[in-house]
Amino acid sequence: MALSTEFTELFGIRHPIALAPMGGSAGGALAAAVASSGGLGMLGAAFGDREWLDREARIVASRTDQPWGVGFLTWGIDVGAVACALEYGPHAVMLSFGDPSPYVELVREAEAVLIIQVTDLEEARQAVDLGADVIVAQGTEAGGHGARRGRSTLPFVPVVVDLAAPVPVLAAGGIADGRGLAAALALGAAGALIGTRFQATTEALVDPMITKAIVEGRGDDTERNTVLDIARGSRWPSKYPARTLGHPYLDRWRGREAELVADPQVREDYQNDVARGVIPPLPVWAGEAVDLITDLPSAADLVTTLANQAEIALARAGRR
Amino acid sequence: MALSTEFTELFGIRHPIALAPMGGSAGGALAAAVASSGGLGMLGAAFGDREWLDREARIVASRTDQPWGVGFLTWGIDVGAVACALEYGPHAVMLSFGDPSPYVELVREAEAVLIIQVTDLEEARQAVDLGADVIVAQGTEAGGHGARRGRSTLPFVPVVVDLAAPVPVLAAGGIADGRGLAAALALGAAGALIGTRFQATTEALVDPMITKAIVEGRGDDTERNTVLDIARGSRWPSKYPARTLGHPYLDRWRGREAELVADPQVREDYQNDVARGVIPPLPVWAGEAVDLITDLPSAADLVTTLANQAEIALARAGRR
Repeated sequence: MALSTEFTELFGIRHPIALAPMGGSAGGALAAAVASSGGLGMLGAAFGDREWLDREARIVASRTDQPWGVGFLTWGIDVGAVACALEYGPHAVMLSFGDPSPYVELVREAEAVLIIQVTDLEEARQAVDLGADVIVAQGTEAGGHGARRGRSTLPFVPVVVDLAAPVPVLAAGGIADGRGLAAALALGAAGALIGTRFQATTEALVDPMITKAIVEGRGDDTERNTVLDIARGSRWPSKYPARTLGHPYLDRWRGREAELVADPQVREDYQNDVARGVIPPLPVWAGEAVDLITDLPSAADLVTTLANQAEIALARAGRR
Repeated sequence: MALSTEFTELFGIRHPIALAPMGGSAGGALAAAVASSGGLGMLGAAFGDREWLDREARIVASRTDQPWGVGFLTWGIDVGAVACALEYGPHAVMLSFGDPSPYVELVREAEAVLIIQVTDLEEARQAVDLGADVIVAQGTEAGGHGARRGRSTLPFVPVVVDLAAPVPVLAAGGIADGRGLAAALALGAAGALIGTRFQATTEALVDPMITKAIVEGRGDDTERNTVLDIARGSRWPSKYPARTLGHPYLDRWRGREAELVADPQVREDYQNDVARGVIPPLPVWAGEAVDLITDLPSAADLVTTLANQAEIALARAGRR
C-alpha cells in the first residue's frame, strides 16, 4: 500500500515525496534513484549551468523511466536556461526565489508540470494567479536559502493549502523523517519536498566532509545567516539568508555583515582557507530537522523508509 | 469517537487538547469550558497574583468536575505562589520559561501532574531528568513569549518525542485548527497545547479590541520582538522576545532596543497612549497561525471542532 494524494496522482507516482532540487548536489544519480523508488526526483540546476545540466540530465534520463523534474533559482536564470533544460524532457520544472512569471509560458508550452515555491502569502497568491500546477510552501526551518521574512512550515502550510485549493501544495522545511511527511499530509499538503535528509544519501553530489557534518549536526546548531554568502563571494542576494550549521567565519562575522561586505580581503582569506582545507569547500546548508538525520542510506531505501514511517505515524496518530 | 493518546489516558480526558495557560487571559471560565468539553483547561496564573488566582481557581473548580491545571512563568514566581495554587487542588501544574527545579518536589507532593514547557533540547533533557510527567515542546511560531534562540515546532517536536520517550509530549506553537492538531499527533506528540486560538473565544479574559485584532490578523504580520515589553515597562527578561501583531511602538523602535531601554520617557508616553486609548492596553500576543482564526466561538464549540477536524485530517492524510 502507499499514501495517495493529488500530487501522486498528478505524476502517477507511488509516494508523496519530492526531492528538493538542491543546487549542484541533487544530480542525476540522486534524482533517478528518488524517481525509480516512487518519489519525484528533481535536478538542482541552480543558475542553469549548461555543462552540469547536460551531464546530470543525461544521467537521470538514462537511469529511470519514471517522472523527474528540474529546479532553478529564479532570480539567477534567464529564459535560455529553462529552454535548455526543457530539451531534456523533464516532467516538471520547479521555480524558487524570484519572479517566476517570465518562465511560465515556456514550461506550459513544453507540457511540463509547473511547480512554484513560495515563502509568503503574496508569493502564494501570485503562484495561483500564474496557474502553478503544484505549489511548494517553504518554511524557515528549511536548510539552505529562504526568504528573510519567511514563515514556519507548520502554520504556513495550511494557509497556503486553503489559498491555493484545489492546486496541490507540498510542504517544505523541517521534514526529515516519515513523521514529518505524515504531519505535512495532516496539514492538508499533498506531499513533502525534502532537502537536507537527501544530502545524506549515497547518491548526493556532496563532499564527504559535508555529509559527516549533517549526520553529526544538531538542529540547535543551525542558524540563518548571510555571513557565509558574503564571505565566499556568492551571487545570492542578501534578502535570501541561508540556514547552515556552524562555521568559523560565522562565529567571526555574525552581526557585522556590513563590515564584512566592505572588506574584500575576507573573500580572499576565505578562498585561501578553502584551498588549505581549513574550512569546507561550501557552507553546510542544513535544515532544523538535521537532528533526525543519523545515517547515510541509499536514496531508494530512504524513500521507502519515509513512506513506511509516514503510514505508521498516521495510523498511530489516528488511533481511537 | 475520539483520538486517544498517552496524554488523554493520563488525565482520563476525551481530547488531546490543552489550553495554554496564557497569563491573565486563560481564566476560570475559559479553563472550565475547555475542561468540561474534554480538553485540559489551564489557568494562566503568570506570576502567581493571589487575588487573580483565588478568583479564577474558584470559578474553574465550581464549573467543572473534570481535570484542570494551572500554569506559571517560572522565572517570575517563588515557592509560595505554587504552594498557594496547589491549595485549590489543580490536577496539573505547568512550568514555563526558567528553571523548574525549585518547584518539582512541591508539585509531586501534592500529587499533581507536572508539566514542563521546553524550548530547546537542553531544557528538554532537564525536564526528563526532573521527572516531568508531560513535556510541552514550544516552537517559535507560538504567540506571546518564547526563547530567543528557539526552535520551530515541526522539526522540534519529533526530536523531543524521541528524547523524552516514554514521557508524553505536547506540541505548542503554530497550531490553531484541527489540521495542526493532527500534524502534532503525526509527529508523535500526545496532543497539542493551544494558545492564540483560545484568545478568540467568548470565555477568554481579553479586551474586545484584542479579540478583533486576532480575528483580523495575518501570520505575515506577526513578529517576535522585545520592543513592546521594554516600552510598557514589563518584567519579562529580554531573553524572552514575544510574538505580537503589529503595533505603532514596534514600527517606531524596531532595531533600536538599546536606545529604547535608555529612554524612560517612552514608558511614560506608552502609559499615556494607553490611557488615551491610542494603543491597546496590552500588546496583541499572537502566533503565526493567526491566519486560521477568523471567528469567535465558545471554547466548548472550539474544542469539539478541533477534535473533529483532526480526525478528518488524519483520515484524509492516511488514505491509500
